Amino acid sequence: MTERIFATYFIETPYPLARAAEVMAGEQSSGTFTRLANETDALRANHGAIVERIEPLESVAVPSLPSRPIPGQAGVSRYRRGNVTLSWPIANLGPSLPNLMSTVAGNLFELKEFSALKLLDLTLPPSFADAYPGPQFGLAGTRELTGIQRRPLIGTIIKPSVGLSPQQTADVVRELVEGGIDFIKDDELQANGPHNPLKARVDAVMPIINAHAARTGRQVMYAFNVTGDIDEMLDNHDHVVAAGGSCVMVAINSVGLAGVTHLRRHCQVALHGHRAGWGLYSRSPHLGMSFNAYHKLWRLAGVDHIHVNGLRNKFSEEDASVIASARACLTPMFEPPAPGCEVMPVFSSGQTATQAADTYQAIASTDLIYCAGGGIMAHPGGIGAGVRSLRQAWEAAVQGVALGDYAREHRELAQALEAFR
Amino acid sequence: MTERIFATYFIETPYPLARAAEVMAGEQSSGTFTRLANETDALRANHGAIVERIEPLESVAVPSLPSRPIPGQAGVSRYRRGNVTLSWPIANLGPSLPNLMSTVAGNLFELKEFSALKLLDLTLPPSFADAYPGPQFGLAGTRELTGIQRRPLIGTIIKPSVGLSPQQTADVVRELVEGGIDFIKDDELQANGPHNPLKARVDAVMPIINAHAARTGRQVMYAFNVTGDIDEMLDNHDHVVAAGGSCVMVAINSVGLAGVTHLRRHCQVALHGHRAGWGLYSRSPHLGMSFNAYHKLWRLAGVDHIHVNGLRNKFSEEDASVIASARACLTPMFEPPAPGCEVMPVFSSGQTATQAADTYQAIASTDLIYCAGGGIMAHPGGIGAGVRSLRQAWEAAVQGVALGDYAREHRELAQALEAFR
Repeated sequence: MTERIFATYFIETPYPLARAAEVMAGEQSSGTFTRLANETDALRANHGAIVERIEPLESVAVPSLPSRPIPGQAGVSRYRRGNVTLSWPIANLGPSLPNLMSTVAGNLFELKEFSALKLLDLTLPPSFADAYPGPQFGLAGTRELTGIQRRPLIGTIIKPSVGLSPQQTADVVRELVEGGIDFIKDDELQANGPHNPLKARVDAVMPIINAHAARTGRQVMYAFNVTGDIDEMLDNHDHVVAAGGSCVMVAINSVGLAGVTHLRRHCQVALHGHRAGWGLYSRSPHLGMSFNAYHKLWRLAGVDHIHVNGLRNKFSEEDASVIASARACLTPMFEPPAPGCEVMPVFSSGQTATQAADTYQAIASTDLIYCAGGGIMAHPGGIGAGVRSLRQAWEAAVQGVALGDYAREHRELAQALEAFR
Repeated sequence: MTERIFATYFIETPYPLARAAEVMAGEQSSGTFTRLANETDALRANHGAIVERIEPLESVAVPSLPSRPIPGQAGVSRYRRGNVTLSWPIANLGPSLPNLMSTVAGNLFELKEFSALKLLDLTLPPSFADAYPGPQFGLAGTRELTGIQRRPLIGTIIKPSVGLSPQQTADVVRELVEGGIDFIKDDELQANGPHNPLKARVDAVMPIINAHAARTGRQVMYAFNVTGDIDEMLDNHDHVVAAGGSCVMVAINSVGLAGVTHLRRHCQVALHGHRAGWGLYSRSPHLGMSFNAYHKLWRLAGVDHIHVNGLRNKFSEEDASVIASARACLTPMFEPPAPGCEVMPVFSSGQTATQAADTYQAIASTDLIYCAGGGIMAHPGGIGAGVRSLRQAWEAAVQGVALGDYAREHRELAQALEAFR
């Protein structure tokens, strides 16, 4: 096999960049702190990681992460920055997502030679596409399951996040469904707790969704949060399927790669990936993983949807980063004939009718789920009016009509613009 | 149920600490950005997170993580630091490790109100000890499986990390076993790749270990790295058991909480937890998770051993942190009658005979696995001499004899002190 895995990192180091890159390559392949007799030239040629490219950037006077002094170099005055690309032969690990993690995002974060190290991108050979299922429904499948074409799925999160009973959840769902919602999700805090067990919630919610589908021909997609232990997740998934549901949600970081892959292989409905905990990877510019690298792991594992925040969100993520993430979701991961593994980006966090036009302008696509929690639930005209205000905002966006103009003919949009400005 | 979960965080924020703590509590329980009609007082009382304690610390002029400006507060000049303890009712999530992650280490890392947020500690109610298996073998079981009492298990990592064939691995194992090693582990990079598939490695290695056990009555513990997808891990575990093995290793971050828990429930041998990727949680003082919080999750999930680095390691971790981590592993997690869930700390990374005495002095215990890779493999007298040098170093440490003095009567120790000083 000659396939290779490529990973690009941002690094900062008191050493020359070339030497620092060699330390990374050695630590993450055949090296240890001293050369061993059985580390033959042939072994290094076949299994050593290769430094493919070094792009020097600026240098800084203060290390970005706390670092121990270099022995015999007490007076380091500059820390060099650069982007470095390494490659590994697939022979080292095979097409295995968990072992890919150990290889490209393992011990190297701890190396004392670095005062910053962030994984920026990952290019995987097609054997990964053969070994992993990827998204089962993706964009087209999600549209088919919901019957929504040529516009975003208008979605919401049941709020309060946690604390409602199954019956109270169903009461909210009834209002949402009657209001014309396309997609509903549990909050990531609402999974299978004793005050609102998943099966009881499914049993309370699905009759409403099924009755609405029988009446209108359109099934609202409800992403039931099955996050939990493996057998519990599979069992709860089966309950959702038996009740006629079309989606389950999983908190991907909380469950982990092997668990999500296992759920996907069993899954018969759309798999909604929530990235709670993402800040751990993203908040520091000097440590962690970019969305570009991160989300590819979960696409291969097989989620159909993944969260990307939203414009002017309540979190710390900048708008440009949100848009880049959404575009990444829609960009093929592999060249044909391997599957592209495109997934639906989920806009969420502080979203109301006010961000629809800017979102459409920035992403130039309607292949997305647009979720508003408070933006629907707290609409002054009630839940149905909240849903209608979002639909109207997206109609205006796609038609290229200014929000304010469209609002003159559409009362719910006008109320939203007034309430959430 | 009145049980509560407690989590303590280090935070930094431009807001008053009390207000920032309320934002955390709201975001991670029943709140959204606006108060909803169905967020009743009763719901808040039963399900809201509570701010239990605020300990103000210093303030700083520059935010530690990039932060967006506060609307209407362009001129923020101080960022306040503090330690904050929140609590949640178990009713919100039940005793579920993945949902615990979503609750205590989920969206809150992304909140724009914070320029630093790190989870420092976690106190869990006993229902978690009922719901999760915890370590199956722990300290006593590991000693029983290996027949080693009253001293550390002397261990090593097969090196080169990756690239040896099964037969080449077995050749190294033969030397190690004959040299008197107690414990051997695969590198975290060596799992089930096509050049050295796990089952072939087991088949090459176990006859040597079994023959040695038949001869001496002592079975060397080999931690076979079964890290992979769920069914693959269980199948490879079964192969290790059938071959007479006594341990499997898993890269815990790479597999994730649900996967490791599932493996543990199936596991018949000791479960060795490797924390590759730990730097992502630990390297920044302003983001992530302390070992104190982190390792409790994996103890409950059921690892028997967990890595803690070692003194003067090749990574960035300070010695004091290494020792605190090792002590944490040996400290009970629950009050009796709930199990303590103690696990064996694994010292590793750049370890040789030279750190044994300091390690013993600092931890005042021999309940540990002391792993040296290069420190054994690169010993000038060969692998057997490398193993003996570590045994001798620990004999000296426990007897309170200075290393140099002990080396006068012990040639392999003398060689190690010369080679690795």
